[in-house]
Amino acid sequence: MPVNLNPPVASELLPINGVLLGTTEANIKKPNRKDLLIIQVDPQSTLAGVFTQNRFCAAPVVVAKDHLAAGKGIRALVVNTGNANAGTGEQGMANARASCAAVAKLLGCAPEQVLPFSTGVIMEPLPVDRIIAGLPACVANLKADNWFDASQAIMTTDIVGKAVSRQIKLGSTVVTITGIAKGSGMIHPNMATMLGYIATDASIAQPVLQKMVSQASDASFNCITVDGDTSTNDALMLIATGKSGAAITDTTSDAYKQVQAAVTEVATLLAQAIVRDGEGATKFMTIKVEGGNNAAECKQIAYAVGRSPLVKTAFFASDPNLGRILAAIGYAGIADLDVARIKLYLDDVLVAEQGGRAASYREEDGQRIMQQSDIGIRVVLGRGNAAATVWTCDFSYDYVKINASYRS
Amino acid sequence: MPVNLNPPVASELLPINGVLLGTTEANIKKPNRKDLLIIQVDPQSTLAGVFTQNRFCAAPVVVAKDHLAAGKGIRALVVNTGNANAGTGEQGMANARASCAAVAKLLGCAPEQVLPFSTGVIMEPLPVDRIIAGLPACVANLKADNWFDASQAIMTTDIVGKAVSRQIKLGSTVVTITGIAKGSGMIHPNMATMLGYIATDASIAQPVLQKMVSQASDASFNCITVDGDTSTNDALMLIATGKSGAAITDTTSDAYKQVQAAVTEVATLLAQAIVRDGEGATKFMTIKVEGGNNAAECKQIAYAVGRSPLVKTAFFASDPNLGRILAAIGYAGIADLDVARIKLYLDDVLVAEQGGRAASYREEDGQRIMQQSDIGIRVVLGRGNAAATVWTCDFSYDYVKINASYRS
Repeated sequence: MPVNLNPPVASELLPINGVLLGTTEANIKKPNRKDLLIIQVDPQSTLAGVFTQNRFCAAPVVVAKDHLAAGKGIRALVVNTGNANAGTGEQGMANARASCAAVAKLLGCAPEQVLPFSTGVIMEPLPVDRIIAGLPACVANLKADNWFDASQAIMTTDIVGKAVSRQIKLGSTVVTITGIAKGSGMIHPNMATMLGYIATDASIAQPVLQKMVSQASDASFNCITVDGDTSTNDALMLIATGKSGAAITDTTSDAYKQVQAAVTEVATLLAQAIVRDGEGATKFMTIKVEGGNNAAECKQIAYAVGRSPLVKTAFFASDPNLGRILAAIGYAGIADLDVARIKLYLDDVLVAEQGGRAASYREEDGQRIMQQSDIGIRVVLGRGNAAATVWTCDFSYDYVKINASYRS
Repeated sequence: MPVNLNPPVASELLPINGVLLGTTEANIKKPNRKDLLIIQVDPQSTLAGVFTQNRFCAAPVVVAKDHLAAGKGIRALVVNTGNANAGTGEQGMANARASCAAVAKLLGCAPEQVLPFSTGVIMEPLPVDRIIAGLPACVANLKADNWFDASQAIMTTDIVGKAVSRQIKLGSTVVTITGIAKGSGMIHPNMATMLGYIATDASIAQPVLQKMVSQASDASFNCITVDGDTSTNDALMLIATGKSGAAITDTTSDAYKQVQAAVTEVATLLAQAIVRDGEGATKFMTIKVEGGNNAAECKQIAYAVGRSPLVKTAFFASDPNLGRILAAIGYAGIADLDVARIKLYLDDVLVAEQGGRAASYREEDGQRIMQQSDIGIRVVLGRGNAAATVWTCDFSYDYVKINASYRS
């Protein structure tokens, strides 16, 4: 079950003026579930996104990048679950383009104004006929207060949907931000992870928006791992409709910083929600590495700890077998790391220093922290002032069970 | 249970003239099991080794490197299981040196002529008193035909011991090679993995021997992964006693090549045995990546596939969810990889080409191969002539079980 994560409440999700969402049951992989989503945006909106760096990136990722680059303005996003349309060659590209064309025809825009997204099983042909057949029902369902249903329609192995809203005030203008995301397995982001859609009613120029989404993803989705596997389909899209009247034209203004902070908060909560709902997760760990020469080496060490199956199974067992954390720090690839300087903490308990177990450490203190469902791992390197944080979950029987039966 | 791996048969392990082995039950972690080993070598022997690159390397690794560098000639190796003496700071160093001193006193040599090795739980103080108390029994037990007991005495979560012998003829001289190894989890070598000891009665000059052990480990222990975790204690030692009369003085001779090939064969069988006995393993996979620009990129891709939890759980389930292999190839970090050129085979079945599923592929063919216990994964990159092979196992419920209960 998700770790300290409540399902979103539909009534708490705020509509974004300029954004409509419509879902349907298109029977893509399984019957009787919402599996197709259209997000329609008003013409003046700007969009920016970050996409997976996986070389086997999915056909919809290639097409979405092409359509963004075409510069005609984006009017709609179409998202299906149940099939990733990845590892599908030329036919996959044709299917992604056909989905866009069908949406464009229904909404009265150009195919290049539609962005396609898919998530699900890899290397199976996309059932494009079922998608096209489902689109009219999505269009008929388009409405502003449909973020909850949208969060449900993009789930795969997720147990709960992920959705967050925030409001801030820029002077006297209220700016609203709402985001949804999906993801539970194949989570180890490289520039972006899985599917995330965040919209705001601020007006934000496209280059400014691109910087905002990159910064937000670097501080959120690019800080999580469930299993070390980088998806073929990752994408995070940020939509700015401008309907609130608040306008952001450059990245140095106070308004930029305030919206940036709120967008990053939404992205971080969504990213953490993905880990809390990580496949088979029973524990949520925040791994903070500080005192490094630069943020990159801190993140490298945090990820080594966060993806180690030995560390993750020890947390599943609530067993303070914490030498495994030292081993992961040691193999993280920092050639000149002086292990005698490192301090390791579990929450506020000093576990190791001077290359070994701390004299003050007592097994019962470690045991107490390991019983918690939310656990902090803090590594102090003692060689600089940089820091980085990664969020991860434990590794349980259920991870194996879920992934040994994913296609069935 | 180990995958297609029989336990070694004591009578098939050939003694090496110049090497004696003695074991005892020293009660280091658990009673009633052999857990302490001395390997005594004759004075004229040469030794060479490769050690873990983990920055949190264990105290015995540091001391063994120091003693090898001292150049006084090595007379004995002392190995304990049940405790890794890693992440143990200054006290760990003192304990490793004390073990060497105690062995030296019993055998009448200098402490610097003894190499220490430990394996087991990390960040627990080494019970050095129990080790020292057990050493006289090890010495009393020293004999040439004790390789089987030695292979048992170094096991941790191993289900079976690993031991192999080979004989080759150099002209009319018979040269014998016998090796043992341990390892089942925390297996993801970086220069060497876990504990391995190989001895031959050839005479091999030390610099030549060093090259031989590096070449052998690169082609064997450095090609395996169980869980992606690089141990703090990895070490592979190669011992040449010279007692057969066969002498190898340079790396260009035919004799070098013959012994090198036999040593590499022994090392490869031991390395594969570690994977076949990988924690929780039910399948053994040989991942061959060919058609690369260089061996390094081929190995990088093979390791990405071999350590992917999603790939490994699919193999556990005998589920041909083979798009996960494409995803792992795609995130392996080869920036200019052209996925349209890649061919993926499962044994002799062509699964994917031109960026998607092969037209000729049928699910029942993939299903048939996935049911096997030994499976070949072949990736043809189509961009050069280099190749690399990695051996790995699947990821099962039992991996989680073993590692959630390791200390208990």
